[in-house]
Amino acid sequence: MRIALAIGDAAGIGPELAARIVADADANAGDLIVIGDRRLLAEGARIAGVAADLPVIGVDDLSRPLPSGSVLLDLGNCDPAGVARGGSSDAAGRASLQNFAAALLMGKAGIADAVAFTPFNKHSMRLARPSYVDEIGFVNAVTGATRSGREFNVLDEVWNARVTSHIPLSKVAETITTDRILQSLLLTDEVMTAAGIADPRIGVAALNPHAGDGGNFGHEDDEVIAPAIEAARAQGLKVTGPVPSDTVFVRAIKGGEFDAVMTMYHDQGQIAMKLIGFDRGVTLIAGYPFPIVTPAHGTAFDIAGQGIADTGATFNALALGRKLARLHPRPPATGEARADAARAIAAQVAPEHAGE
Amino acid sequence: MRIALAIGDAAGIGPELAARIVADADANAGDLIVIGDRRLLAEGARIAGVAADLPVIGVDDLSRPLPSGSVLLDLGNCDPAGVARGGSSDAAGRASLQNFAAALLMGKAGIADAVAFTPFNKHSMRLARPSYVDEIGFVNAVTGATRSGREFNVLDEVWNARVTSHIPLSKVAETITTDRILQSLLLTDEVMTAAGIADPRIGVAALNPHAGDGGNFGHEDDEVIAPAIEAARAQGLKVTGPVPSDTVFVRAIKGGEFDAVMTMYHDQGQIAMKLIGFDRGVTLIAGYPFPIVTPAHGTAFDIAGQGIADTGATFNALALGRKLARLHPRPPATGEARADAARAIAAQVAPEHAGE
Repeated sequence: MRIALAIGDAAGIGPELAARIVADADANAGDLIVIGDRRLLAEGARIAGVAADLPVIGVDDLSRPLPSGSVLLDLGNCDPAGVARGGSSDAAGRASLQNFAAALLMGKAGIADAVAFTPFNKHSMRLARPSYVDEIGFVNAVTGATRSGREFNVLDEVWNARVTSHIPLSKVAETITTDRILQSLLLTDEVMTAAGIADPRIGVAALNPHAGDGGNFGHEDDEVIAPAIEAARAQGLKVTGPVPSDTVFVRAIKGGEFDAVMTMYHDQGQIAMKLIGFDRGVTLIAGYPFPIVTPAHGTAFDIAGQGIADTGATFNALALGRKLARLHPRPPATGEARADAARAIAAQVAPEHAGE
Repeated sequence: MRIALAIGDAAGIGPELAARIVADADANAGDLIVIGDRRLLAEGARIAGVAADLPVIGVDDLSRPLPSGSVLLDLGNCDPAGVARGGSSDAAGRASLQNFAAALLMGKAGIADAVAFTPFNKHSMRLARPSYVDEIGFVNAVTGATRSGREFNVLDEVWNARVTSHIPLSKVAETITTDRILQSLLLTDEVMTAAGIADPRIGVAALNPHAGDGGNFGHEDDEVIAPAIEAARAQGLKVTGPVPSDTVFVRAIKGGEFDAVMTMYHDQGQIAMKLIGFDRGVTLIAGYPFPIVTPAHGTAFDIAGQGIADTGATFNALALGRKLARLHPRPPATGEARADAARAIAAQVAPEHAGE
């Protein structure tokens, strides 16, 4: 079992989180391939006040089986001295993209069984690569996946999947079609079953206040969402709803009624999940041959560098990644796949080195 | 100090909550005028396993100063034997409307300093009065108010006001105008100041995910909400935002950063408030000469009649009503106002009696 752990944005809490994880015997099971600049991990260790010394490997070493125990893949791509803490920057974004791409290529090759990363900053990533939209598009591009994965938030045994995500609120009602909701339900059921949660009970959040109150406050709950639920049930799924969105999380989390909540839009789920467990929640990107996990919180620019960042969510992310990877063991990477990955990673990092 | 406490829907937990409040020496400060059918309160006491005996008065008695101590105004308008527990009905809705109208008329006359009610069921109320939309419209109609009040949710010292409420989600973006948001902020500041919270710090929730992410996910946060915040600040208000709606409640409740959160739509606030304190939250209708308070939860048809309903939120509602009434003492009701109120209440109940 190998977990590729990409160090996130250099200006945020990512480096100190990575260092704390390396230094924590419960979090570092000797299975980590930490990816990033060795100077950045050292800076994180200094901030966190921990020792995070790992055997260092280079990209070429990926062509051969790795030594046992956790290692650091030094990409030499981000000197912390050149990054102002607490703000977005092209330099930090470029390193984040390279670290993430390397982790994904290792996942694709079978060198890593799961991919994890400490928080990225989308603005930094867009400064480095203006076309960057979100993680899923990047994973598709880097791995050549033909089917998009799906993002889930996981907190205290409750999963949250959403039908729409990064779109204006004004577009939500027209975007949630019966077919789109049905596909989301089927994929959620499939991914959760693959994650060892058999026959997951899914509560579906209503779109409108009071689930439309019988049509008084909108018709989508009766005319768009309810038919998707019926269709999913007809396929044997355990789906309930539409449940007013101000009670669906109460029923899931306090009542234990649902294993997952399907929300119609970004904030409908995020308001609840962040309120319940800002420091514990995990984001899972599933639907690829290997799980991708990260803490649900962000770069926390406001506390970066103070050494107070909590590793709870990162710890939970690694635990979920290991659990999912264990459920779906893959054959070890072939020599050819290793060599391909090493070449591809070297190409990702090359433009950075070109200027040196 | 007198609190008019209207018994809510006969099929829900309202009667047992009212009985428990009457029987609780901490909740019943000898200042209650409980309003409803004596048989309903007796049934609530039986369910709750408490004694809730109060001196009974009739509508005519309202013309004179009331005896000291809590009393029951028996409207004889709802025999619990005729109401099926756990469902909506015309009979329960009609009694709810009459109890609420009587309480409001007492508030208007100065017989009561605050109005409270245990949960209503809107479907029952609409069966009895198809034109019933929500509490605020009813208060305006019964009291002849020329300016609408505003609904707030109050939980653990944090207030939540919303710019839009019972409308389809698809209409939210077009409904929140800069002027509407500004007026909501001004009224919230005014009401909270009147409630003894000087210079309230108000966090304004963004409409779109990540507050629009610089325009990537919608423009309303920058173009509609931000100008309202600037205008409010120019008038001296302490307003922050737009804050992404998945962190604004975390900052208010866990961080103590805001006294109030202004949300753009119903579920944006309700998801958070119900999750944090389903059993403690209070709904306040403010902007009238007397405060109107009720528990934020509903009739709980699923547990009605079991005697397990929690009075926490009702207790908090009464406490808030008393606090606000104490801050704004009103002159005692004149004999003329009392007589007017008694006549108006008799007229409200008359149609029910006409059929007997």
